[in-house]
Amino acid sequence: ERDKYENNDVAGVVTGLAWTSVGGDILFIESILSKGKGTMTITGNLGKVMKESATIAMEFIKSNADRFGINPEVFDKYNVHIHVPEGATPKDGPSAGITMLTSLVSLFTQKKVKKSLAMTGEITLRGKVLPVGGIKEKILAAKRARIKEIILCEDNRKDILEIKEEYVSGLTFHYVTDMQEVIDVAITEESVKNAKSL
Amino acid sequence: ERDKYENNDVAGVVTGLAWTSVGGDILFIESILSKGKGTMTITGNLGKVMKESATIAMEFIKSNADRFGINPEVFDKYNVHIHVPEGATPKDGPSAGITMLTSLVSLFTQKKVKKSLAMTGEITLRGKVLPVGGIKEKILAAKRARIKEIILCEDNRKDILEIKEEYVSGLTFHYVTDMQEVIDVAITEESVKNAKSL
Amino acid sequence: ERDKYENNDVAGVVTGLAWTSVGGDILFIESILSKGKGTMTITGNLGKVMKESATIAMEFIKSNADRFGINPEVFDKYNVHIHVPEGATPKDGPSAGITMLTSLVSLFTQKKVKKSLAMTGEITLRGKVLPVGGIKEKILAAKRARIKEIILCEDNRKDILEIKEEYVSGLTFHYVTDMQEVIDVAITEESVKNAKSL
Amino acid sequence: ERDKYENNDVAGVVTGLAWTSVGGDILFIESILSKGKGTMTITGNLGKVMKESATIAMEFIKSNADRFGINPEVFDKYNVHIHVPEGATPKDGPSAGITMLTSLVSLFTQKKVKKSLAMTGEITLRGKVLPVGGIKEKILAAKRARIKEIILCEDNRKDILEIKEEYVSGLTFHYVTDMQEVIDVAITEESVKNAKSL
Amino acid sequence: ERDKYENNDVAGVVTGLAWTSVGGDILFIESILSKGKGTMTITGNLGKVMKESATIAMEFIKSNADRFGINPEVFDKYNVHIHVPEGATPKDGPSAGITMLTSLVSLFTQKKVKKSLAMTGEITLRGKVLPVGGIKEKILAAKRARIKEIILCEDNRKDILEIKEEYVSGLTFHYVTDMQEVIDVAITEESVKNAKSL
Amino acid sequence: ERDKYENNDVAGVVTGLAWTSVGGDILFIESILSKGKGTMTITGNLGKVMKESATIAMEFIKSNADRFGINPEVFDKYNVHIHVPEGATPKDGPSAGITMLTSLVSLFTQKKVKKSLAMTGEITLRGKVLPVGGIKEKILAAKRARIKEIILCEDNRKDILEIKEEYVSGLTFHYVTDMQEVIDVAITEESVKNAKSL
Ligand SMILES: [Ca+2]
Ligand SMILES: [Ca+2]
Ligand SMILES: [Ca+2]
Ligand SMILES: [Ca+2]
Ligand SMILES: [Ca+2]
Ligand SMILES: [Ca+2]
Ligand SMILES: [Ca+2]
Ligand SMILES: [Ca+2]
Ligand SMILES: [Ca+2]
Ligand SMILES: [Ca+2]
Ligand SMILES: [Ca+2]
Ligand SMILES: [Ca+2]
Repeated sequence: ERDKYENNDVAGVVTGLAWTSVGGDILFIESILSKGKGTMTITGNLGKVMKESATIAMEFIKSNADRFGINPEVFDKYNVHIHVPEGATPKDGPSAGITMLTSLVSLFTQKKVKKSLAMTGEITLRGKVLPVGGIKEKILAAKRARIKEIILCEDNRKDILEIKEEYVSGLTFHYVTDMQEVIDVAITEESVKNAKSL
Repeated sequence: ERDKYENNDVAGVVTGLAWTSVGGDILFIESILSKGKGTMTITGNLGKVMKESATIAMEFIKSNADRFGINPEVFDKYNVHIHVPEGATPKDGPSAGITMLTSLVSLFTQKKVKKSLAMTGEITLRGKVLPVGGIKEKILAAKRARIKEIILCEDNRKDILEIKEEYVSGLTFHYVTDMQEVIDVAITEESVKNAKSL
Repeated sequence: ERDKYENNDVAGVVTGLAWTSVGGDILFIESILSKGKGTMTITGNLGKVMKESATIAMEFIKSNADRFGINPEVFDKYNVHIHVPEGATPKDGPSAGITMLTSLVSLFTQKKVKKSLAMTGEITLRGKVLPVGGIKEKILAAKRARIKEIILCEDNRKDILEIKEEYVSGLTFHYVTDMQEVIDVAITEESVKNAKSL
Repeated sequence: ERDKYENNDVAGVVTGLAWTSVGGDILFIESILSKGKGTMTITGNLGKVMKESATIAMEFIKSNADRFGINPEVFDKYNVHIHVPEGATPKDGPSAGITMLTSLVSLFTQKKVKKSLAMTGEITLRGKVLPVGGIKEKILAAKRARIKEIILCEDNRKDILEIKEEYVSGLTFHYVTDMQEVIDVAITEESVKNAKSL
Repeated sequence: ERDKYENNDVAGVVTGLAWTSVGGDILFIESILSKGKGTMTITGNLGKVMKESATIAMEFIKSNADRFGINPEVFDKYNVHIHVPEGATPKDGPSAGITMLTSLVSLFTQKKVKKSLAMTGEITLRGKVLPVGGIKEKILAAKRARIKEIILCEDNRKDILEIKEEYVSGLTFHYVTDMQEVIDVAITEESVKNAKSL
Repeated sequence: ERDKYENNDVAGVVTGLAWTSVGGDILFIESILSKGKGTMTITGNLGKVMKESATIAMEFIKSNADRFGINPEVFDKYNVHIHVPEGATPKDGPSAGITMLTSLVSLFTQKKVKKSLAMTGEITLRGKVLPVGGIKEKILAAKRARIKEIILCEDNRKDILEIKEEYVSGLTFHYVTDMQEVIDVAITEESVKNAKSL
């Protein structure tokens, strides 16, 4: 499975961390563009709160297009589709917020996402990152998937300090308080292969 | 957490007081604008009544645009998104009405909201402010969050008088009967940083 | 609370009588206009039948615009919002029909509603007024709120006759069979303060 | 109540017969026109099947406009609203079909409906009239309301023959098999007062 | 009732066979056209699967317009309404698929449907006919209604062979595998009375 | 039944493998085009996740039109309908994803699908193929239906290795990791009979 997390050739694919009834897991956020009129489609067997995260991410990007170097006219010319495999698993909660926003920034800038990086955190409409639950289980899942770097909310730092050191050794943590920090860590300068010129 | 409530650099962010099954809590109302055609999006895991509060606030502003110095043509050129973190918590009830309206006035005027201020109250379509429940629990939460000033409905004055003085010492209360009083207290003359010219 | 019912400075605010599981109560119908394309929004935690009353009232006015001296082109240029505080209380049933229609006539004519007046009755699409239940409880609530005049359906006259005289002394009753009679009693010749020129 | 059923001054008001858990009852179908773009609104606390009857009636009229002498361009210039008082009573079933169609024919032709006439029967899309249940209870309700003539499906003739003669004395029955017969009986040659010129 | 099944003067009326909890029954599919923009309305108290059959039938006709000699521009100029009396009976399942498609072919070609013919079978999007259940009960109902010819899926031939000969004597069976065979049997060369020129 | 799986004359028909409570089964995905404005209709008594698979397949094709040699203007000029017989059986889950995408590629290229081929696998928005469950039951169903070749996710290879050899003898397996491999196996160079020129 390793190549799944090391490959960053495609825009809009970002690794998140999920916490389910059977433990931690990694999940992918995928997003794509197609010519259209600005609609957004969300799939992946998602609950109401997780769909709202996608809406918040999209609206935050629209409201701050200039900050990310995105021409706002693009939003009216393309449809966006955000998907979270695997469809058989119901998913909900706000913790994929920063992953979704990172996916969309990669998509609209056609920049590569950093390899071997995962993240978890709620996003707010003004770009603040909020802490989320299940940190220990998520970290264990990340290690199993050979993730190297993890972005968390500053307020989740205390949860990491409570984890035995052997479980976190070899992992680099980035503690953030707003989305700009997430983007600075996660989005590289390099364009994806066959980048679309939007 | 203190800086959360002291920072007022961003338009549309206002502190409200909530009353949940586990006690009082503070919550934020966030709103943003993006180029669009006048749609309104509401997120934050809100129930029907709380969504209605957002609709009432928006329609009240549209109907009274001149009173607030807002060019009504703005409403057709931007989409508004109102969000209430934290997504994992279901929220409902009418008591965020005046907070939502204050958020939208700040947003459309790009004026700063007063620092260290929180509020709770139902809004009506003609701008009257109605009393709400859970006052004692909300006040305790406000003190814990180092709020300094609180706006309440005049009809909630009696609830404050029933609270032990040590719990309210250091808090300034503004008792109001209509939204204009709320705006007079809450919206400053100062524009936010990087104010958008709508 | 008295000034609530004595004040008629705002167009579209009318006092209704409600009958809930905990007894009679008064309620307000509020309506406002904003520049738009003719949509109608209804809020206040209302059930299906009460929302239908608002639709019936609006369609009746549109179909009889000339009778009320309303320029029908107005309907396409403004959005109407009808709200019934208090949002925390679920409300349903057809008995606010004549109150809603009175509110809309006041709104579209910008005429003041008579002071200290309350009403309850179902409206039909051809303008007939139908009797409603809970009359005794509603009358007691009206007296507590210092209402002076009450509009009821002619078919509810018998319900008033069954109430002890001391409970109805000081109240003037207007028994009606169609909406024109309601309007004749309720809408004054005087324009509201700062009347909008539609 | 008598004048309710004898008055036919208004277009679109037709008397139907209903069968509820507490016995037979009469009901009115009301319909009105307002300037618009051809939408149809249906109110009256109706179930799915009764709403479908309204849709069938409207589509049948549109498809057979010439037969009824209606200019088909009218359908795009007016909105139609069909309402069934009394809103507090849930209503369902297909038996108001012919009443609704009669209401719409009266509305679009602005012709008076025959006085003291009631009817019950399901309508099909090709204009056939189908039999319905609860005939005995409906007839008793019609007599109580001083109805003089009743339109029924031919297949309901047998139900009338089973009723004691004293209950049906003084009533004239019209047994029909298709809508044209209903219209021939129910719609007069006379225009309503203040007929709209569509 | 006989004339019901012998009459084929109206386009779009086709006899189907249904299987309900109380045995077999015959049902009609009715469809009509009205000037419009290409919408489709479906009524008759139908469940989700039966509504899907109508959608499949309509889309199959649109995709194969030339095969049926239909000018595809017609689809944008008329609204189609498909109805299945009797509204009081909930109906569901895929077995009316070929009946619905036959109804629509008759409607859009304005050709008469063969007299005394009934049918039952699921339709697929590529025009294949699939077998359905309840064959014995349906055949008995068809005989009671004096149906003479029946169209069934080839895969239902075995179900007919299991029925006592006396029950099927006098009935002609057409076993088909795709819709073209259904149309060849069911749609005559003759135009309906007062055929619309589409 | 054999010809069902050997016939590939029609564009858009692809054989999938399903796993239900009563064992494995084969199913067809059918898709057709009609002149329109780019809407997508999905039928077949499908659950939410299976409908999402159709959406994902369609959006993936739109986003990668050039890769498949499809003129993107086609998407706005035709409506797509995807159907999964048999309507009486509820169906859900993500495992028809690759079958749906193959159906759409055949449809938009008007190329024949390889004969005697079946497939099962989840699709992601970036074209990766994910493993699915019920492999053993699906393989048995495929053999019964005389399928010759099967496409599976590489991660499902281990499930095949656990099946007794006699059950898989005579079957050719194609293990894939992304959709391009599926298309390479499944879509032939040959156009369907009467190919539409899109
Ligand atoms: Ca997983
Ligand atoms: Ca930091
Ligand atoms: Ca909190
Ligand atoms: Ca005050
Ligand atoms: Ca109250
Ligand atoms: Ca009177
Ligand atoms: Ca009654
Ligand atoms: Ca007759
Ligand atoms: Ca029957
Ligand atoms: Ca055959
Ligand atoms: Ca099967
Ligand atoms: Ca491979």
